Amino acid sequence: MYDKNSKIGFIGLGTMGYPMAGHLAQQGYQVSVYNRTPAKATQWQAQYSGTSAKTPAELAQGMDIVFSCVGNDNDLRAVTIGEQGAFHTLAPHAVFIDHSTTSADIARELFSIAQAKGFHFLDAPVSGGQSGAEKGILTVMVGGEAEIFAQVQPVISAYAKAVTLMGNAGMGQLTKMVNQICIAGLLQGLSEAVHFGEQAGLDMKLVLDVISKGAAQSWQMENRGKTMVDKAFNFGFAVDWMRKDLGLCLTEARQNGATLPITALVDQFYADVQDKGGNRWDTSSLITRLTRKI
Amino acid sequence: MYDKNSKIGFIGLGTMGYPMAGHLAQQGYQVSVYNRTPAKATQWQAQYSGTSAKTPAELAQGMDIVFSCVGNDNDLRAVTIGEQGAFHTLAPHAVFIDHSTTSADIARELFSIAQAKGFHFLDAPVSGGQSGAEKGILTVMVGGEAEIFAQVQPVISAYAKAVTLMGNAGMGQLTKMVNQICIAGLLQGLSEAVHFGEQAGLDMKLVLDVISKGAAQSWQMENRGKTMVDKAFNFGFAVDWMRKDLGLCLTEARQNGATLPITALVDQFYADVQDKGGNRWDTSSLITRLTRKI
Amino acid sequence: MYDKNSKIGFIGLGTMGYPMAGHLAQQGYQVSVYNRTPAKATQWQAQYSGTSAKTPAELAQGMDIVFSCVGNDNDLRAVTIGEQGAFHTLAPHAVFIDHSTTSADIARELFSIAQAKGFHFLDAPVSGGQSGAEKGILTVMVGGEAEIFAQVQPVISAYAKAVTLMGNAGMGQLTKMVNQICIAGLLQGLSEAVHFGEQAGLDMKLVLDVISKGAAQSWQMENRGKTMVDKAFNFGFAVDWMRKDLGLCLTEARQNGATLPITALVDQFYADVQDKGGNRWDTSSLITRLTRKI
Amino acid sequence: MYDKNSKIGFIGLGTMGYPMAGHLAQQGYQVSVYNRTPAKATQWQAQYSGTSAKTPAELAQGMDIVFSCVGNDNDLRAVTIGEQGAFHTLAPHAVFIDHSTTSADIARELFSIAQAKGFHFLDAPVSGGQSGAEKGILTVMVGGEAEIFAQVQPVISAYAKAVTLMGNAGMGQLTKMVNQICIAGLLQGLSEAVHFGEQAGLDMKLVLDVISKGAAQSWQMENRGKTMVDKAFNFGFAVDWMRKDLGLCLTEARQNGATLPITALVDQFYADVQDKGGNRWDTSSLITRLTRKI
Ligand SMILES: NC(=O)C1=CN([C@@H]2O[C@H](COP(=O)(O)OP(=O)(O)OC[C@H]3O[C@@H](n4cnc5c(N)ncnc54)[C@H](OP(=O)(O)O)[C@@H]3O)[C@@H](O)[C@H]2O)C=CC1
Ligand SMILES: NC(=O)C1=CN([C@@H]2O[C@H](COP(=O)(O)OP(=O)(O)OC[C@H]3O[C@@H](n4cnc5c(N)ncnc54)[C@H](OP(=O)(O)O)[C@@H]3O)[C@@H](O)[C@H]2O)C=CC1
Ligand SMILES: NC(=O)C1=CN([C@@H]2O[C@H](COP(=O)(O)OP(=O)(O)OC[C@H]3O[C@@H](n4cnc5c(N)ncnc54)[C@H](OP(=O)(O)O)[C@@H]3O)[C@@H](O)[C@H]2O)C=CC1
Repeated sequence: MYDKNSKIGFIGLGTMGYPMAGHLAQQGYQVSVYNRTPAKATQWQAQYSGTSAKTPAELAQGMDIVFSCVGNDNDLRAVTIGEQGAFHTLAPHAVFIDHSTTSADIARELFSIAQAKGFHFLDAPVSGGQSGAEKGILTVMVGGEAEIFAQVQPVISAYAKAVTLMGNAGMGQLTKMVNQICIAGLLQGLSEAVHFGEQAGLDMKLVLDVISKGAAQSWQMENRGKTMVDKAFNFGFAVDWMRKDLGLCLTEARQNGATLPITALVDQFYADVQDKGGNRWDTSSLITRLTRKI
Repeated sequence: MYDKNSKIGFIGLGTMGYPMAGHLAQQGYQVSVYNRTPAKATQWQAQYSGTSAKTPAELAQGMDIVFSCVGNDNDLRAVTIGEQGAFHTLAPHAVFIDHSTTSADIARELFSIAQAKGFHFLDAPVSGGQSGAEKGILTVMVGGEAEIFAQVQPVISAYAKAVTLMGNAGMGQLTKMVNQICIAGLLQGLSEAVHFGEQAGLDMKLVLDVISKGAAQSWQMENRGKTMVDKAFNFGFAVDWMRKDLGLCLTEARQNGATLPITALVDQFYADVQDKGGNRWDTSSLITRLTRKI
Repeated sequence: MYDKNSKIGFIGLGTMGYPMAGHLAQQGYQVSVYNRTPAKATQWQAQYSGTSAKTPAELAQGMDIVFSCVGNDNDLRAVTIGEQGAFHTLAPHAVFIDHSTTSADIARELFSIAQAKGFHFLDAPVSGGQSGAEKGILTVMVGGEAEIFAQVQPVISAYAKAVTLMGNAGMGQLTKMVNQICIAGLLQGLSEAVHFGEQAGLDMKLVLDVISKGAAQSWQMENRGKTMVDKAFNFGFAVDWMRKDLGLCLTEARQNGATLPITALVDQFYADVQDKGGNRWDTSSLITRLTRKI
Repeated sequence: MYDKNSKIGFIGLGTMGYPMAGHLAQQGYQVSVYNRTPAKATQWQAQYSGTSAKTPAELAQGMDIVFSCVGNDNDLRAVTIGEQGAFHTLAPHAVFIDHSTTSADIARELFSIAQAKGFHFLDAPVSGGQSGAEKGILTVMVGGEAEIFAQVQPVISAYAKAVTLMGNAGMGQLTKMVNQICIAGLLQGLSEAVHFGEQAGLDMKLVLDVISKGAAQSWQMENRGKTMVDKAFNFGFAVDWMRKDLGLCLTEARQNGATLPITALVDQFYADVQDKGGNRWDTSSLITRLTRKI
């Protein structure tokens, strides 16, 4: 349905959005961008061909699809229904696709507003991190209407290896929450294991090699185990983002009746990491609160 | 060094030991077995060729290698230095290899006693579970003397895909503890994630398919995620064994100064599962204490 | 400064507000009341002498002091700055005193709005529960201006045994949060202790008598210990209120950098109690999730 | 039954035992003491009138009652059934009363051995700390035979304000465990509360004064709250003793099926305090792991 003449807007050229918008341009779509800090938009235009707009509202005019990848609920609110938000100018039948990790509540709220205004909204949080965005191999979890999903899936595939419809509005965000809950408990377990092994005098890199072949294996063990042993954390998914995400999970759980003891605890443990100055460290830095002497 | 004429004894024909001893027999070694409950030894002899003994002490006489795979520290103590234990009759230069999961303390203690008596002891706990034992693809983590390890490694390979020397006496057990600590936190995270997803009304099998491609992935997610959704637990690694193992970890941590908050908590959560009658359920049954209504 | 001719309004005649407003009337103040559900206002007027109003805005006109004791942040917002809120009609120099337990954020926000409009706001959450309100012996923790506090303290004393200025706007609420954090950890400890004692076959009422003389003593032990043994929970401070309060604490901690591991965990444990139908049970019902067989 | 001519032995003149034995001497009993490090026995004899013995076995000969107040299970084992232990020489009908905090298992074991040998054993752990011992106002929780208890209660009262029979052998120790479980959760709650209040900029001594009148009140708040604010911990009940005691609780819970999540977690948190060098600090030092910057 969409082709190279389709007009695409992209709001938010951060760590994730910048390369995602770039992949769309490289696929040949007509891409226009908006970034709060204009310098990044200028830089993006220099690197890829495309236009830029001064506000989300200006950007959204006449677009077929508008993407966003901003910070939190408030940020998303600002660029959609805020004073200069895209929702004021989006054409009927246009599709707004949000790639930010937000609450399911705001996703459902924006879906309803979009519906009332005659256009479409999909919540579409991603996983895969900076390198996934750069390589164009993100995993995208989508909530919204099946028909709309089917139309935009090929476009999203410009930067994704998997794009899946998870259910109604908000269910993309809920899927992402499931993902983050898994990671919180898993990383604390891994942190305690590495810490224990170090206290026990084991050669932990050898240990990780051996046990990553069995029931203790995880992506985190394979991709973060050795950097945890090296106490190297200046990369990856930042602790501050993780706390935001866990906050979303805990708030949602308060509503849906789920009980998340370890998630709640690990969220507090991340407060310890922040207290140590680890706001921008990778989430695997959870181990630093155990090995205080270092 | 060892060949088909080598004489091998095996103590403990339980879920794990039975097939392990079977693989040794199938490789052509001269295998003699001992089991506390004699019926299992008789059954084993019927299935594989080999002899049996009435006590560990009787079994150990004249052996080149004696293996054990029994329950806990007390059980290992009984079959080694107990009244009818193998240590009373083992020949000088023989090797005793223990595959039980025990404390590092008893491993170090038996190593010292063996040394004083002129024979050898290796602690060699395994991972891979019942199916790993049956298929002969266990992972074996060994503590003890390098020279002895090098000699017996080919024999152990009869039922293992990886046999690694982790360090001195006790370090096999310590490695296994690291493995179990990883699993405890990881499974609680996974349990909370599945529980949350269910409360949120997500199609959890679809969710697991999607997120198992990224940073939340784990062996447990791939191999236990869907059975957790189905609430099927009559298989796998029993909760009672897990509590024994976590007890070993927590006792060791008390000595080496490691702090294991989530491990300690999950150990208590397993008490809830036992309280529900889950003593023999797979460790993934941790989720049952969250979904109490089911 | 205030005397029997002072005009006092009271918003929210719930479990707490009803008797509090009653004490003010009994002290001889001219009390007018507002309650969302009018029947309670009618009942209150029948029991005490006084008038009533149809909206907070109507009530507030010409008042010297207006009190509120409603539910959460949203409720307080509704009765103050909401469409029919009291802030639209309050006279200059009047004082608005809120007895609800809310966030410190909304207390600070309402303080600023009041200041801009020329009247005064005090956040004044209470402890002491229903019986404290009925007996007029509450503890009141106040945040706001010292001068204003000094003027209204004698009035508040109508239903309080202690009224203390804790600091600037919001600090009343923060003090109440400290109170709730203490209680959460304390009650979980007490729950585990009673549960353990029961599993151990002890006569727990005797045990509580003995240990309440020493370092384990607490108000909760003395006032809730035996009802916990009896599993009687249809009274006291409701689990739903407690979760609201712990939610406030955890949100505030996210801002001020405090790390509250046990508070976060106990908050999740209360989700288990809610899941058992304990929404209105006393907070000491935390023990019910340990003794699942009962 | 016992009078000033009764012969009393006391094993273990540590922080607790020294003043306890002193009170017995001051009451006029014929007291003989044993201490592993003889200097303390000499010092004790210089301060109080009495004799001393070179071994527990020597001490116990001809005694009517022998008390002990040593460290842990192993220490108690040493002074009773160890090579030079008191159990080898105790006369029939004599009573051995242990004031150490130990497992219930060893209490039951020694009770049985005593019974077989024709004398009596009571487990009688205490609470009240060093100052309680010095002032003679301990609380004593006793397990054993009612008849024997009745006879010795007046003697124990020399240093106790309350001496209560809790039930059969071991139930004194189990009662003490209930006490310690209460304290663990309570102190962590109090620590988080003080920490939160400090982060919030409250005057915490004022806050403690205010809230100690209500539902958050506890002995620890009244007796340790302000020293926690001052970060003063060089007194009181040592962290190392607490970890020993919590270890006993957790081991017992493993047997009786109780689930103790917060107790297990706080036990791990105490590992953090030990890691900071707090082995001899008062248990209220739990707060130091939250305020890491200090
Ligand atoms: N099951 C699993 O998936 C895994 C288990 N392990 C570890 O392997 C060990 C064995 O497990 P598993 O085979 O499942 O256990 P089982 O309970 O199936 O078998 C235990 C074996 O040990 C024998 N045994 C136990 N106690 C004594 C004793 N005091 N004296 C003599 N023999 C004794 C039993 O004899 P009898 O037949 O008479 O009862 C039986 O042969 C454990 O340490 C476990 O933690 C490690 C990895 C995976
Ligand atoms: N109960 C207790 O033991 C204690 C309670 N508190 C705190 O005191 C406050 C009140 O508690 P409690 O009296 O028990 O609560 P209740 O539920 O018994 O009463 C709440 C009162 O607030 C009114 N109200 C709620 N929302 C609104 C709204 N949006 N607009 C107008 N009126 C509203 C209710 O009106 P309506 O009758 O129409 O529902 C009712 O009068 C809470 O913040 C609570 O946390 C503090 C200490 C102890
Ligand atoms: N301190 C407190 O506030 C409280 C302590 N308790 C409990 O009371 C008991 C004693 O505590 P406390 O007095 O503080 O401890 P201390 O360490 O001050 O004293 C321990 C005493 O036991 C003796 N002892 C230890 N091990 C042995 C052994 N193997 N053989 C012979 N004697 C031994 C020591 O002898 P030596 O002088 O030679 O070292 C010393 O006399 C402990 O179980 C503790 O948990 C209970 C309540 C409060």
